[in-house]
Order: sequence, then C-alpha cells, then structure tokens
Amino acid sequence: MLNRLGIVGVGLIGGSLALAAKQRNLAQEVIGVGRHPERLRDARERGMLDVCSTRFADVATGCDLVVFAVPVLTFPPLLEQFAARWDGTGVVTDVGSTKKSTIVAARRELGPRYRGFVPGHPIAGRERAGHEFAEADLFVDHRVILTPTQDTDPAAVDLVTTFWRAVGARVVTMAVEQHDTTLAATSHLPHLLAYALVAMLAGRSDAERIFDFAAGGFRDFTRVASSDPDMWADICLDNREAIETVLRDYQLCLHELQTAMHAGDRAGLRSVLERAKIARDEWLDSRP
Amino acid sequence: MLNRLGIVGVGLIGGSLALAAKQRNLAQEVIGVGRHPERLRDARERGMLDVCSTRFADVATGCDLVVFAVPVLTFPPLLEQFAARWDGTGVVTDVGSTKKSTIVAARRELGPRYRGFVPGHPIAGRERAGHEFAEADLFVDHRVILTPTQDTDPAAVDLVTTFWRAVGARVVTMAVEQHDTTLAATSHLPHLLAYALVAMLAGRSDAERIFDFAAGGFRDFTRVASSDPDMWADICLDNREAIETVLRDYQLCLHELQTAMHAGDRAGLRSVLERAKIARDEWLDSRP
Repeated sequence: MLNRLGIVGVGLIGGSLALAAKQRNLAQEVIGVGRHPERLRDARERGMLDVCSTRFADVATGCDLVVFAVPVLTFPPLLEQFAARWDGTGVVTDVGSTKKSTIVAARRELGPRYRGFVPGHPIAGRERAGHEFAEADLFVDHRVILTPTQDTDPAAVDLVTTFWRAVGARVVTMAVEQHDTTLAATSHLPHLLAYALVAMLAGRSDAERIFDFAAGGFRDFTRVASSDPDMWADICLDNREAIETVLRDYQLCLHELQTAMHAGDRAGLRSVLERAKIARDEWLDSRP
Repeated sequence: MLNRLGIVGVGLIGGSLALAAKQRNLAQEVIGVGRHPERLRDARERGMLDVCSTRFADVATGCDLVVFAVPVLTFPPLLEQFAARWDGTGVVTDVGSTKKSTIVAARRELGPRYRGFVPGHPIAGRERAGHEFAEADLFVDHRVILTPTQDTDPAAVDLVTTFWRAVGARVVTMAVEQHDTTLAATSHLPHLLAYALVAMLAGRSDAERIFDFAAGGFRDFTRVASSDPDMWADICLDNREAIETVLRDYQLCLHELQTAMHAGDRAGLRSVLERAKIARDEWLDSRP
C-alpha cells in the first residue's frame, strides 16, 4: 500500500485511477493536481481525491508514486515544472498513448533522476473526456503496457506493475518501438480513418440526408471519431512515423479492394473480405 | 391483415420479418421458401413459419405479399424462377441493400407485372447471418427505404408501407440513385474500410501481437468486418459506381489528414478532427 499517490491531471484516466485507488484502499492519501480548482473540488467531492491542488509542489515531495495522466503533448512542459520541484524520491509514471517522445522528454527533464520514471500506457478509455466519466473498474482486465528502457530502475517498474495489477489491469512490458507500432495499427490508425469518414461526409452538400440514414454499423465504426480532437491531434503528431507506415499499408489494401471492385473481380474482392472476417472472428474468440 | 405472406430466404432479415409477422398477427399464414429443408424446419420450429417449402410454386400463387430476403446477386436468378410461376396477383418486394440492379432485374423478369414489385431496403441488420439471430423487433424504429419508380403501382407501395409500419419500421420513399448514394456513404464504404483494416493487419508478420493489444475502439471500428463476405462482395459490386465516388472523396480527406500529419500541421489536423467530432456528436444527439 502506498502512503501518498499523486495524480497529475484528473480527467477520465486520472480520475478513474484515483477512484480505483480510493475504493481499493491502495493509498493512505490520494492527491490530485490540475489547472481548474473547481473541477478538482468536484473530483474530490466525487470521492476520487483526498486532497486537491493547483500547485505542483504538492506532489513533488512525499509521494511514493506520481502518475501523469495528461495529453501527450502537455506532458513535457508539465514534467519540466514538476522536475524543478521533485525531490527525486518515489516513482513517476505516465499514461500517454505514445511513448517515444515521452521518454525523450523524461530523459531531458529528469536527468539522472530519469531512472525513477516508468513509461506506461493503459489500453483503456472512452470517447468521452473528463472525470465525470471516470469509473473505478475502467482498467479491470485491460492491458497496461510499460516500456522501461535499459536505464529504468527495476524496482520502479515493480512498483508501477504492482499498482496497475491492484486496480485490475494485466501488465506487460515491451520495447518502445513495438508499443508505438502496435498502437498505431490498432488504435491510432482506426481513429484517423473514422475521423476522415465523418469529416468527409460532413463536408457534403447532402450531409443532412446522408446522416439521417446512418445506422448501427456507422455508429460503431465512427464511435472513436467522437474522441477529443486535441488529444488525438497530439497523438497523431507524436506517433506520426509509425502511423504513416501503417497508413501506407492500409492505403495499399484499400487500393487492392478498389481495383477488384472496379474490375468486377468478385473472387478477388471476396477473398480480401473473407480474410478480414476470419481474422476478426478469431480475434474475438481469443479475447478473455 | 394478410392472408398469406411468403418469405423467400429465411435468414436474419427474412426470419426476423417472419417472426415479427407471426408475433404481431400480420398474416393468417406465413410461408417460407428456401434451399435447405432442415434449416427451414428449424425456422418453423422456432415459430417463424407456418409452412416451409423448397419449391417456388408454393409462394408464386395465393400470397398477398411475397418478400425476397436474399443476397443482392442471388435476387435476379431467384426472381426469374419465381416469375415463371407467379400468377401476377399480390405484391412482391425485396430487402436488398442496393436498388439499381434489383429494379433492372425486376423489369426484365416480371415484364408487365413489374408494376406489382416494390423495391425496398430495411436499414437494419446484424453482422451475423442466419435465422438463429432473428429478432421480432429487429425493425422497430429502423428506417425502411422504398424506391418505387414511376410505373410502380401506388397500391402496391401502400401495402408494403403498411406492412413495414406494422412491424415497427419508419418508412420513407426516395429515388433509387439517392438511395444508392446514401447507402454507399453510410454503410457500404464503412464496411469496405473496416474490412481493409483487418485484412491489412492480418497480413502482417506480427499480426498475432498486434491483435493481442487491440481493444474496444478497434472492436467497434471493425465490427462490420465480421459481416458475411459473400453478401458484401455482392453489395460492393452491385453498387460499385456510387461506392467508388464516395471512396475517392474519402481518399482525398485521408490524404489531407496524412499531409497535415506529415507536415506537423497541428492546426490543420485538429480542424479536420474537430469537424468530424462535432458532426458525429450532433448526429448522435439528433437520433430518435
């Protein structure tokens, strides 16, 4: 059990983590830091936090674990502010959807204290932002990927692993490049593709009628396009290299379908669709 | 109320329609025609049908309404068989996802009796095929689009409209080109895009690991890629003209995102994402 848990950014992820820690008695005290005093007080009233503050100094000393749960491009400047006050004790982790730039920023800002930083990413979320949507069970049976580097303190990795397991998550570690490619393929690209569809349709002169007949398939396909544009602009930019690679592969596959369709090549078209259906059904069956 | 309702093809849609008609007492007798005697008997035992048969002659005479609930490319040859036996009384309709080729086939096969044919398309479905997944309420509050032509008998349109309303659907009529474009944009293209993503990922050497970390966003985005490849190969080919048009627009929009991402143009990227989010949230809010 932790004495003090610090949460920087009490949104959907930070709030859910705080709530899970409180409900499961994982910390004597949960302290949340954010920009908006009113929203922090609201989170405290909802039972997520014991203490809330708008000052970094309040989590920079005396916390066993500090979790940065902020948008990926917000992380570097906030870590800089934190680093100026951090006493170097305890462990720092994050929940960002991309990991390469997180690590670059952490090395730069923390210097020799970088070894106490564990890059992390819970594969969990909602398309809604804000602690109003927080759930104590958000991470139960979800993956958390940690991407420690050679110079990360193993004891720090252990502490973060134990903490995530205590909120119900299944923790794995992998190399940062592997993480960024995996997430580009399964999460970042689908977001981009869904955003593109809705943006394209919304730009049509007959958009109103078109949307009027959109049904359940469309709703599910585009669900992720209701996600926060700021968060996703940041993720896309931050992981652009890996996303561009899978996007090119995607465009090739789409072009293959387009060509088969145009040529009236039913067998060619069908074989791609069938390959996809089989792969997806197997994936569904394999899920816990 | 109908005396006899004939259903050709007792799958998800045909079975749900039969079940809805039985439960709501819309027909004295529901007769289902299909290829597989065992599956038909099973549907009868599930309470969907009063009579089942593998012979077209059994629905070609004496039905007030015959509904073809078969894949789009299967419709023309089956209608040909039906036309050879049809006594020309009653009304014939279909549920195909594309309408242009349906109408061409109906004109060709029915000749002067074409006026008794009402092209229709319920905007309802599941990614699972077969009457095992049939639901009596599948059409409740869902749209049904009818695309009658100038030479369609208005009385036939009235009968089909009344029937769909009686199973809970909201019926609208529109021009066939409008239907095909609308469905290409909101249904056929998303299916193609989802199939392409899963097919592309399944072809990767690291597919297993990639899929292992796919989560809820991926599941919803790709749900439609578990749909029947035969049915969707047919739909794509049948409506290829309209699909190719929206696919080109889509590729342009995707390219715009790709360019902004590559250039690190956060404002440009964000504005497209935000346009999509606003449009989708408004669409969600406007739904009944």
